[in-house]
Amino acid sequence: MNKNSSNIMALAPNTSNKRETVCIFGTGDFGRALGHKMIQSGYPVVFGSRSTQASSLIPKDAEVLSHAEAAQKAAIIIIAIQRQHYNFLTPLAEVLHGKVLVDISNNLKINQYPESNAEYLAQLVPGAKVVKAFNTVSAWALQSGTLDASRQVFVCGDDMEAKQMVMDIVRALGLTPLDQGSLLAAQEIENYPLKLFPMWKFPILLSLGLSAFFFFYSLARDVIYPYVYENKDFSFFIAISIPNRICPILALILLALVYLPGVLAAIIQLYRGTKYRRFPDWLDKWMLCRKQLGLVALAFASLHVLYTLVIPIRSFVRWRISSRIISQALNNKTEPLNTTNAWLSDSYLALGILGFFLFVLLGITSLPSVSNNVNWREFRFVQSKLGYLTLILCTAHTLVYGGNRFLSPSSYRWYLPNAYMLCLIVPCIVLVVKFVLIFPCLDKPLTRIRQGWERNPQYSE
Amino acid sequence: MNKNSSNIMALAPNTSNKRETVCIFGTGDFGRALGHKMIQSGYPVVFGSRSTQASSLIPKDAEVLSHAEAAQKAAIIIIAIQRQHYNFLTPLAEVLHGKVLVDISNNLKINQYPESNAEYLAQLVPGAKVVKAFNTVSAWALQSGTLDASRQVFVCGDDMEAKQMVMDIVRALGLTPLDQGSLLAAQEIENYPLKLFPMWKFPILLSLGLSAFFFFYSLARDVIYPYVYENKDFSFFIAISIPNRICPILALILLALVYLPGVLAAIIQLYRGTKYRRFPDWLDKWMLCRKQLGLVALAFASLHVLYTLVIPIRSFVRWRISSRIISQALNNKTEPLNTTNAWLSDSYLALGILGFFLFVLLGITSLPSVSNNVNWREFRFVQSKLGYLTLILCTAHTLVYGGNRFLSPSSYRWYLPNAYMLCLIVPCIVLVVKFVLIFPCLDKPLTRIRQGWERNPQYSE
Amino acid sequence: MNKNSSNIMALAPNTSNKRETVCIFGTGDFGRALGHKMIQSGYPVVFGSRSTQASSLIPKDAEVLSHAEAAQKAAIIIIAIQRQHYNFLTPLAEVLHGKVLVDISNNLKINQYPESNAEYLAQLVPGAKVVKAFNTVSAWALQSGTLDASRQVFVCGDDMEAKQMVMDIVRALGLTPLDQGSLLAAQEIENYPLKLFPMWKFPILLSLGLSAFFFFYSLARDVIYPYVYENKDFSFFIAISIPNRICPILALILLALVYLPGVLAAIIQLYRGTKYRRFPDWLDKWMLCRKQLGLVALAFASLHVLYTLVIPIRSFVRWRISSRIISQALNNKTEPLNTTNAWLSDSYLALGILGFFLFVLLGITSLPSVSNNVNWREFRFVQSKLGYLTLILCTAHTLVYGGNRFLSPSSYRWYLPNAYMLCLIVPCIVLVVKFVLIFPCLDKPLTRIRQGWERNPQYSE
Repeated sequence: MNKNSSNIMALAPNTSNKRETVCIFGTGDFGRALGHKMIQSGYPVVFGSRSTQASSLIPKDAEVLSHAEAAQKAAIIIIAIQRQHYNFLTPLAEVLHGKVLVDISNNLKINQYPESNAEYLAQLVPGAKVVKAFNTVSAWALQSGTLDASRQVFVCGDDMEAKQMVMDIVRALGLTPLDQGSLLAAQEIENYPLKLFPMWKFPILLSLGLSAFFFFYSLARDVIYPYVYENKDFSFFIAISIPNRICPILALILLALVYLPGVLAAIIQLYRGTKYRRFPDWLDKWMLCRKQLGLVALAFASLHVLYTLVIPIRSFVRWRISSRIISQALNNKTEPLNTTNAWLSDSYLALGILGFFLFVLLGITSLPSVSNNVNWREFRFVQSKLGYLTLILCTAHTLVYGGNRFLSPSSYRWYLPNAYMLCLIVPCIVLVVKFVLIFPCLDKPLTRIRQGWERNPQYSE
Repeated sequence: MNKNSSNIMALAPNTSNKRETVCIFGTGDFGRALGHKMIQSGYPVVFGSRSTQASSLIPKDAEVLSHAEAAQKAAIIIIAIQRQHYNFLTPLAEVLHGKVLVDISNNLKINQYPESNAEYLAQLVPGAKVVKAFNTVSAWALQSGTLDASRQVFVCGDDMEAKQMVMDIVRALGLTPLDQGSLLAAQEIENYPLKLFPMWKFPILLSLGLSAFFFFYSLARDVIYPYVYENKDFSFFIAISIPNRICPILALILLALVYLPGVLAAIIQLYRGTKYRRFPDWLDKWMLCRKQLGLVALAFASLHVLYTLVIPIRSFVRWRISSRIISQALNNKTEPLNTTNAWLSDSYLALGILGFFLFVLLGITSLPSVSNNVNWREFRFVQSKLGYLTLILCTAHTLVYGGNRFLSPSSYRWYLPNAYMLCLIVPCIVLVVKFVLIFPCLDKPLTRIRQGWERNPQYSE
Repeated sequence: MNKNSSNIMALAPNTSNKRETVCIFGTGDFGRALGHKMIQSGYPVVFGSRSTQASSLIPKDAEVLSHAEAAQKAAIIIIAIQRQHYNFLTPLAEVLHGKVLVDISNNLKINQYPESNAEYLAQLVPGAKVVKAFNTVSAWALQSGTLDASRQVFVCGDDMEAKQMVMDIVRALGLTPLDQGSLLAAQEIENYPLKLFPMWKFPILLSLGLSAFFFFYSLARDVIYPYVYENKDFSFFIAISIPNRICPILALILLALVYLPGVLAAIIQLYRGTKYRRFPDWLDKWMLCRKQLGLVALAFASLHVLYTLVIPIRSFVRWRISSRIISQALNNKTEPLNTTNAWLSDSYLALGILGFFLFVLLGITSLPSVSNNVNWREFRFVQSKLGYLTLILCTAHTLVYGGNRFLSPSSYRWYLPNAYMLCLIVPCIVLVVKFVLIFPCLDKPLTRIRQGWERNPQYSE
């Protein structure tokens, strides 16, 4: 290796050019995987272990020493050991003084211990600089090299320099370090990998609840009613007909719920005359899960499309059509083309297709890699302008589908209106309010408020 | 951080460990959001404000001081104020001398002012080092933490070190800094968030134009002609039948236009005998928006698929089929299976399905995150080999669909050929020329030219 | 780099503020593209060329000098020349001493030369520090600015500092450097851009083989058999009917093969009583291409959906339905609704829809940008829980579709069972074994083994 740089370099030629040795305590699954990856990235690795005999599983370029010996060889020590065995570190306190200890542990439950593992480690070895990192990466992902899951590594620690050293290693391994601040953040970082789609909980629970309601509603109207009054067995409607009633209803309601909080926020801002006051908590939370609401709505819409396209293959539908044709043939009558019906049928299909198409477009732009490549204005254009257009098209699709059935008394079984009439309530409210908000007398003050103007300014800048 | 840590490090080892205080002028929306995010990332934040009374909206860990006092506390000052109020900074020139001023402002229009806001700021406070940054990030995105839109922060500035300091902050906030060069780039950076899909403009305008043409063309042939000559009201064709004629036509034409510039470029290179001369401007621009053209084509193809799959549910189609069956039944005749028709119908459907399938595959590989994970050879294989296969399949789909209708005089109404015959012109030209270019007598010199060979070398390397 | 520059920096404060000059040897395509991009990013660029006359193609802000002069101006020299011309560098050895030489070359074949180009360069100019980089980026991508393909730049080299300098440049150009270690990695890096979907080879070959088998199997049963015994020409089944038999079969088999290795691994771990021994090589490889297997399965499933939805438009199907209706009408009989059939038909459709829906969901979460945004637990939940649910739904879909045909002797032509019966073998085995593994008597020890417990521990930590 050549070295011809500055003065300092000449004095300490060997150290500046090489990567620093990293020590790993623990030869378990994750310790070995991490060691392997580090050796690949050019770090000399030394394992600290109780039994120093080389195991066939330990990367062959790594040294295995006792804990104390290994610790002396490196400035950074990765603690790849479970929390319950941390106390074996106490006798090593002297060797570990001033070292950077990287806590990579995870718990089995959220908030399992009063303090985070990293803080516990910092208490046990007060002389060391503890950094939390790597706990969100899986051993399997490290080993296989194909990091299918996240490349993000959350890092936190009280010592800035120690944290920087760890972040450099993370980067050298081809991962993306994300500085999360002081060691206080360790609790949250340790909880992170235990979380299961926290933002999705509300949209999914809501849609499950609504699905259950509309399922029984449709069951009563479409299966039980004909069974009771006409003694017909339409139980097989449970497989396709009823799901295909529930899906579009939920898609439309959830899509409307994506845009409802924006409308509410506008009303609140208009009423308050300022944007500088916090929205109520529920509205804030609602706004934060709009993307998830929209994607769940898109899922229902996609199911609706599949259920609908499958209609002509259904055995029941084929039977119904052929028996209708046969009865016409036997009665020797030919119906003329009803252009009104043709118009209605074609328009609600066309509206549905266009609405679904825009909906899928919205879904694609919400993919992280796509939204990363558009600027804020483009993102807002897609999510707001195209979003409202989607809502309008889907609402129109439902309205035209209903057609003149709205007024016909035969569609009120047991005084229950058709389910899709119920689902029109929320989207119509959203669209009407949004339409009202477009009027200049409301839009102008709203725009000014959003640009920072206040009706009753309390402080100014 | 680099410079500070040299000599000072030895004298004040503790300070090097902490993040440096950042000052924010302006307690508006964006200033507060940025302050909040910085505090989260471990930066001490001090706000400079006219009224120093703490507002409930300002992050509680931040100090609020007068502008001068706040500026003294930090090396970096973020100017979260609108351009029209910049002149209040003039009296502060002395305090701001040598400081890094971060201009985060945006305009309302592209090229609103003769000079960019950042350059204006640099003129107002000549002693300071102005860096442009953060203007592409939205306050909402910063506040909510969920950065749905872009994480990219464009940074530019004349002072390298100042720029580096700002880029470090950007990185610490979990965003991705992109160095755009000197402060001259500020104009472009300020225009960036105002742009609305610049690369999409040409493909979308083109497709709108073509759509309009083919709409009126089909309207004349399919709605007005039968109305005039047969007095039939097919106005409802506007909803589905005509769009389903326009969509495949546009998909095919636009797909062919994706590959046409490549073919033209090859011809130009062969003719010139070198690749070292620039293509005409229009060709360069055309080549740069091929991806967008392809995606618009895919959108039309998807609509075509939906419109087609919906056919059997259409009320008009059901009426037509049943009236045909009834008339057959009444006339007591049963048609035998026409295997030629079965072959034609099945093959154009199969070709269409395979073509669409490959088309979707092309679309998926053009997603940024997917194309980031393939190497250049794989990307070219997919976009060129699979792309041409898609074009061949889609052209064949249209040809077989046409079948023997091409020669039948009944398909020429008002001497207008069927619209899909017109749409075959461009793809057929592309395929024929591409086929000719594959011949060794043309392919060999072309390959050599692309590897750097020149017929009449002017300079060599 | 930070620390080293301390003293020198103080002596030459002005230089620290500017980006260092970069020299590029070679004014070919890639050299110019790189130079252009570097100038944009603020680097002064000087080209080393045999003919120093300025060409119109060279970026106008760049200087063009002789090789020796150009090399003296910069610490980093990018060798944008093909390997076969490297020997012209030998006379320049003195000037190049201590310089960072960046090898950006690629070969035309995998392992074309015994040593990598970068290592060859290092042998030719022993005094220089050779770094391999940029070979995975295309000139076209650099020029156009829109980096459609990968932004990743693999970097390797023996000199840490030189590598760091090159990685800084990479980052400044808006690309993502990935440190691959010492110069030994150059061979692999040079092979990388020549690779064509290495992970996809096995899944695609497997599916081609299986497709061919099931194609001829179905051909024999569905086309040749009726031709031989009933003299019917169903040759047009080749277009849609047979592909629509092959696609679902392959989708199901490949999906089952995604989950089979996991089940096998569990059995092996249970048998061995430890997770600390390597799986056989074939199993390791199989596990690494599960994602690709799954995506190929999804492709077949999507084709199956399209082929199925197109059924009612097929001319043959329309003929079959109408001739059936006509014969019913002529025989004056009306079939009553068969609710069992309605149930069967609706349930297999519903199961198929739900299975496909979940399958698409799995596909979406395997998009790199999506999987980057979920934590490991969420990723495993989706890929394992939802994955098994998909397998169950798809298997049930096939079972119900088969219905009572399994026992009917008429479905055994030439003693060959229907193809979809064969395809049920693998998924049923996977599901049964997985079901057995859920029993506590097997699940408990397995969980303990996976947490590190060993039946016969050989070494412990």
